[in-house]
Amino acid sequence: MQGRIYLDGNSLGPPSGDQAGRLADFVTSQWDADLIRGWTSQGWWEAPLRIGDRIGRLLGAAAGQVVVGDNTTIMLYKMIGAGLNLRSDRRSIVTHTANFPTDRHVIDSVARATGVGVRAVSSSDLIDAIDESAAVVVATHVDFRSAERFDMAEVTAAAHDAGAVVVWDLSHSVGAMDVHLDACDVDLAVGCTYKYLNGGPGSPAFAYVASRHLPLLDQPLPGWIGHADPFSMAEDHRPAADVRRVLSGTPPVLGLASLDIALDRFDEVDMTELRRASLALTDRFMDLADRRLAGYGFSVITPRDHERRGSHVSLSHPDAYAIVQALVAAGVVGDFREPSLCRFGFAPLYLTVEHVDEAVDRLVTVMETRTYEADEFAVRSTVT
Amino acid sequence: MQGRIYLDGNSLGPPSGDQAGRLADFVTSQWDADLIRGWTSQGWWEAPLRIGDRIGRLLGAAAGQVVVGDNTTIMLYKMIGAGLNLRSDRRSIVTHTANFPTDRHVIDSVARATGVGVRAVSSSDLIDAIDESAAVVVATHVDFRSAERFDMAEVTAAAHDAGAVVVWDLSHSVGAMDVHLDACDVDLAVGCTYKYLNGGPGSPAFAYVASRHLPLLDQPLPGWIGHADPFSMAEDHRPAADVRRVLSGTPPVLGLASLDIALDRFDEVDMTELRRASLALTDRFMDLADRRLAGYGFSVITPRDHERRGSHVSLSHPDAYAIVQALVAAGVVGDFREPSLCRFGFAPLYLTVEHVDEAVDRLVTVMETRTYEADEFAVRSTVT
Repeated sequence: MQGRIYLDGNSLGPPSGDQAGRLADFVTSQWDADLIRGWTSQGWWEAPLRIGDRIGRLLGAAAGQVVVGDNTTIMLYKMIGAGLNLRSDRRSIVTHTANFPTDRHVIDSVARATGVGVRAVSSSDLIDAIDESAAVVVATHVDFRSAERFDMAEVTAAAHDAGAVVVWDLSHSVGAMDVHLDACDVDLAVGCTYKYLNGGPGSPAFAYVASRHLPLLDQPLPGWIGHADPFSMAEDHRPAADVRRVLSGTPPVLGLASLDIALDRFDEVDMTELRRASLALTDRFMDLADRRLAGYGFSVITPRDHERRGSHVSLSHPDAYAIVQALVAAGVVGDFREPSLCRFGFAPLYLTVEHVDEAVDRLVTVMETRTYEADEFAVRSTVT
Repeated sequence: MQGRIYLDGNSLGPPSGDQAGRLADFVTSQWDADLIRGWTSQGWWEAPLRIGDRIGRLLGAAAGQVVVGDNTTIMLYKMIGAGLNLRSDRRSIVTHTANFPTDRHVIDSVARATGVGVRAVSSSDLIDAIDESAAVVVATHVDFRSAERFDMAEVTAAAHDAGAVVVWDLSHSVGAMDVHLDACDVDLAVGCTYKYLNGGPGSPAFAYVASRHLPLLDQPLPGWIGHADPFSMAEDHRPAADVRRVLSGTPPVLGLASLDIALDRFDEVDMTELRRASLALTDRFMDLADRRLAGYGFSVITPRDHERRGSHVSLSHPDAYAIVQALVAAGVVGDFREPSLCRFGFAPLYLTVEHVDEAVDRLVTVMETRTYEADEFAVRSTVT
């Protein structure tokens, strides 16, 4: 096997083979051909909800509960704010330290805007930390560092038992495994579409609102696109009856078009099968790591238990940064994460066991030949 | 002259001739070729600031003060929130009724989040309404209905005299006229890029922050992309020193790429010349409206004074909705706005006096033959 092996689809997924041509076609046959009329004739107006439903199918969500727009940070702000409004008699947000940093920034900014308190605990303490002061529990489904996966049903039930609502961040699970939002009785969720969903760099985020919450959902960033009658041009905001009320300003139609194309690859996919394929890949990689990499000082920090694992694997190593760079030079793209992690994503949609084997072969070569000790791999760029 | 005459570039600008090919090339030679590395190798990371500077040139803004991302609604929320934080000892937002509805929705939601009051007055009363309780004045540069243009220097000075900061919405002026943000001593501004800038449907918005405010700018939606050291993955938010601090989540790279292509058409453009061309078009249209359309019951509601006019013209008519539909069927695309306005945008980048003459000819034909009375033109769709 030659060529690039891409183990960073958990950061940015690749385009499909027809992505370029179909985006060009969007420009000519939609934007140029119909101009302003495209909002109705080409369905741009409905796209955030229609594409939301396509994602909803991958998440175990019945139609009418998922909408696409903004980015994950903004969607989180809306959902956490909406969660607080659903429990306005309560005064705290409970979360865990597995969050991606932006989740924590958002939690802190919502807390600052509303005056509620924040309790952030380790993941193992999360359920115990949920008490009757909790308005909202913000939980990440899969830890972006360790790939530890948390029990959606259990955390959601604990939140409900205490009278709180839960907001799940699905950024590192959507598109790589089966998720069961409706069955787990989840209240609110958000996620990213440019990782395992392959929507393209900076493609818009999604939000899920359980239908039982929609009639009362009051999110803090209302705008004209989420108005019940946008073209009345009324000054007072009357939210749309459906999940459109989550939207604020004009939807990013071009990003939606790219995501729509990307989702075609999921049409025939059974998510339980996809999860099985993901686990086969990460099992294989962890097994090879134990047998072939441990001797070079790597340790696997990702949980062994299938139930507790996402779709990436992280190896701790003191020289992690340089090793990742040397491995990229050898054609295997993973990424580095602080403090000392080599992180490898196994997107089951397009990776095979052969990719895993070859990646480990090349990593062994990097370690054996010590190429990672070259000066060129030691210098950190500001963006990785 | 035959074919479509597009007088709705103030709602959605058209693509350039090479837009489709260059977007396809983005997918193949950037996204597919470089994948995650594109953030550095292709400059995606810097794109919001680099493209911001390209827009800044059109707005009379020195480099380092404009950034692109989100949509106008979200950018407004950030700028109004930041304005309140700059004047945290004051308790009101002053605005006028010329705003697009989303501006008012945002003002009300910021006010609700912060507990400040809102005073919304007619445009003619705006300056008198600015008193010493005012923290922020939110002003629209060009009224989306009437095309009335407000005096940026005068309103900004009045805000400053009272100790307030001003947030300008430039959605209906950017790309159609010269704007002088630095010279007018403006504090904060936002605007839309899919109208006269032709970025594409839902292309991202921009925000301007005067460099004197940057060190203390505290916007209410912080996220990881605006962090001083994003890949430290620190939980506490330390804002970037530069205008990047306005950003929240991952930038919409595909929308930025499309906007970047669109801005090439402005590279050789002198904005004072462009403004002259715009006024020639609207002068011509208003003159023809007086001479050839008044007899059919149209009245021009757009100000005659050059200084008080944007780049579109609105005609009031009791049958405005049906007339606009019949005119679209005749190949002239304008739009309808409540309550009874036929609105025509004159984008000086691609329209000529001949387009104006032909559009009026066709409108006269519609009125003379009364085609607008056909049933098919009377039914309103929910989206126009």
